[in-house]
Amino acid sequence: MEEIYLDNAATTRCDPQAANIALELMTTEYANPSSLHSKGISAHKRLDIARQQLATSLGCDPEEVVFTSSGTQSNNIGILGSARQRSKNGGGIVGISTMHPSAIKPIEYLGSQGMCIDLLPPKPDGSHDIEAIANAVAEDTILLVCDFVNSEVGSIAPIERISRAARRKSRNIHIHVDGVQAFGKVKFSSRSLDIDSMAISGHKIFAPKGCGALYLRRGAKIKQLLFGSSQERGIYPGTENTPAICAFGHMSRIVCDNFDERHARVLEICESFVKKASQIPGVCMNSPPGATPYICNISIPNIASEPMIHFLAARGIYLSGGSACSKGALSPVLTAMGLERRRIRGALRISFSPQNRAEDVDKLIEALRIGIATL
Amino acid sequence: MEEIYLDNAATTRCDPQAANIALELMTTEYANPSSLHSKGISAHKRLDIARQQLATSLGCDPEEVVFTSSGTQSNNIGILGSARQRSKNGGGIVGISTMHPSAIKPIEYLGSQGMCIDLLPPKPDGSHDIEAIANAVAEDTILLVCDFVNSEVGSIAPIERISRAARRKSRNIHIHVDGVQAFGKVKFSSRSLDIDSMAISGHKIFAPKGCGALYLRRGAKIKQLLFGSSQERGIYPGTENTPAICAFGHMSRIVCDNFDERHARVLEICESFVKKASQIPGVCMNSPPGATPYICNISIPNIASEPMIHFLAARGIYLSGGSACSKGALSPVLTAMGLERRRIRGALRISFSPQNRAEDVDKLIEALRIGIATL
Repeated sequence: MEEIYLDNAATTRCDPQAANIALELMTTEYANPSSLHSKGISAHKRLDIARQQLATSLGCDPEEVVFTSSGTQSNNIGILGSARQRSKNGGGIVGISTMHPSAIKPIEYLGSQGMCIDLLPPKPDGSHDIEAIANAVAEDTILLVCDFVNSEVGSIAPIERISRAARRKSRNIHIHVDGVQAFGKVKFSSRSLDIDSMAISGHKIFAPKGCGALYLRRGAKIKQLLFGSSQERGIYPGTENTPAICAFGHMSRIVCDNFDERHARVLEICESFVKKASQIPGVCMNSPPGATPYICNISIPNIASEPMIHFLAARGIYLSGGSACSKGALSPVLTAMGLERRRIRGALRISFSPQNRAEDVDKLIEALRIGIATL
Repeated sequence: MEEIYLDNAATTRCDPQAANIALELMTTEYANPSSLHSKGISAHKRLDIARQQLATSLGCDPEEVVFTSSGTQSNNIGILGSARQRSKNGGGIVGISTMHPSAIKPIEYLGSQGMCIDLLPPKPDGSHDIEAIANAVAEDTILLVCDFVNSEVGSIAPIERISRAARRKSRNIHIHVDGVQAFGKVKFSSRSLDIDSMAISGHKIFAPKGCGALYLRRGAKIKQLLFGSSQERGIYPGTENTPAICAFGHMSRIVCDNFDERHARVLEICESFVKKASQIPGVCMNSPPGATPYICNISIPNIASEPMIHFLAARGIYLSGGSACSKGALSPVLTAMGLERRRIRGALRISFSPQNRAEDVDKLIEALRIGIATL
């Protein structure tokens, strides 16, 4: 059966070039980059190349790239590390209530430790409420955490405007961005965003699982969470996952160098889907205007997500009900948007990639129609 | 030039079978194991298989295996997580001063936070001083951390005797073992060791980099260090690195199922090396009697490690001066053993694997002789 993979926000199929690079680093260039001998030095050079590739893609210096093992790790280090660095002087944390659990949970943990936290809901359409964020930041706010692209509905936060507004209110604020769903899908330069740290992940852009990165602005201070040897300047100790890191570096250049072409392809697919899906009676759109075309969230109010997901999967079409990470639970994002329960229960997240083709949309639309008639 | 790789304690060359499994999980079975659709369920089943393989290899239940991204992460979670769980009631931590930085540094961090820590030196021959450990554990000791096999000299700790002695002194102690250099090289069952947690790593046993595991005994309580979704019961959140995890599961069975044959081969190679190296004037043995044959530490007192490492590497022979992770620094292990400075400066760690052949020893011996005459 032909496979139509529309769950690219959960993870992507590794690109053949990326897989080949990983394979080379596993079996040929396999030394520990910390080893003093020439084979170790050679592995370290590959790491340097990947760091430069990431830096070019992020619009920062190589010294500002910290490799980690996942977006979750990067969010934890950026959030817990910066909060612990600044918590001595009191002051609160502002975040968005609809962020991914890897950004929400560290904040909630800091709240449980006595820090004052403020998690703001989005606007009813799912977009980021800049005014509310600016109002919530106070003179003594030490940390603002915002997702760049929401993982369930695809809303894009105007990070530049948000950071400008936040810095006007608090001079010593650390601004951390969860960029996992944005990297390669929204054009940006970390420099012009005027933020202090950003989490990104390799397996969302066709690199293997097991590698993320933290953009950490030069001079931004964070406390270590993990302790060991001096890899990644001690911020992320442990033998570097060179196969995944080098593949990640390569893919970061692919997605950024071909940004416009890739974006246009996905936009066309998404727009075609929205147009055709809107003609199916009962289907409503949950993604706000201006959302990324990479993520399209819809609801079929009278059919729960899960049976529809299985119905489609039986036909080789793979998509999800919400973030893969909140498996089974009622979508916290759609709940925060104030949608009615039956609409939340019937939500589907279709996440496209440039690997998808125009025919995929037609097959999905057809399968949805049959599913609605059957279930 | 033919390659003679003798730095297997730093990292190993990925086994072709392991690399193939990783490749399959990257490009075919690539779904997120948290995705609800059948492709996600299928990826999750692969994860279950790997967990069962690790459990069989460790002699524990699958529920006692937590996948992490490295041995460093596993040590941090075992050490910081258990100490934070128990620190409310005061009480100290006992460790070994010659452990790997990923075990030492978390303990030193806890010391900097006000906890009472006691890091014990080894005996002068590099072996573990059981009596000193038993004496150091007090009624209120909350955590004992011990390495199973020392990463520089290969001494093997009698963990069973150590845990028995420790539990006799402190009833509520958590015993964490750094098993990174022991797994697959020393025969053990986690159950009979009577410990609470153990860190192991995939890339030391021919699996790809980017995956470790923590054995966490059923009922052993630890505080979370990282926060996010519910992967690995919340102990290690983030999308699972299925390619590395599945390859790790497979390799754990290979090294444990063929333990005797592999061990015998390495023992023969190591014994041959020791015999021949002892005949070179000036060479001294730093590994204690009873050390694992996988690690052999020697010194050439009048030649610093680094030029010799480069001399050998230029001839395709790769080995290290000590732990790859303490790059450049004077070996803390040999220093703690009280060896004289020139002997420490001339230390070489040869770490064998079953992939090595008898000829490798002859070539190394010949190159060492030429190196000594030349440098």
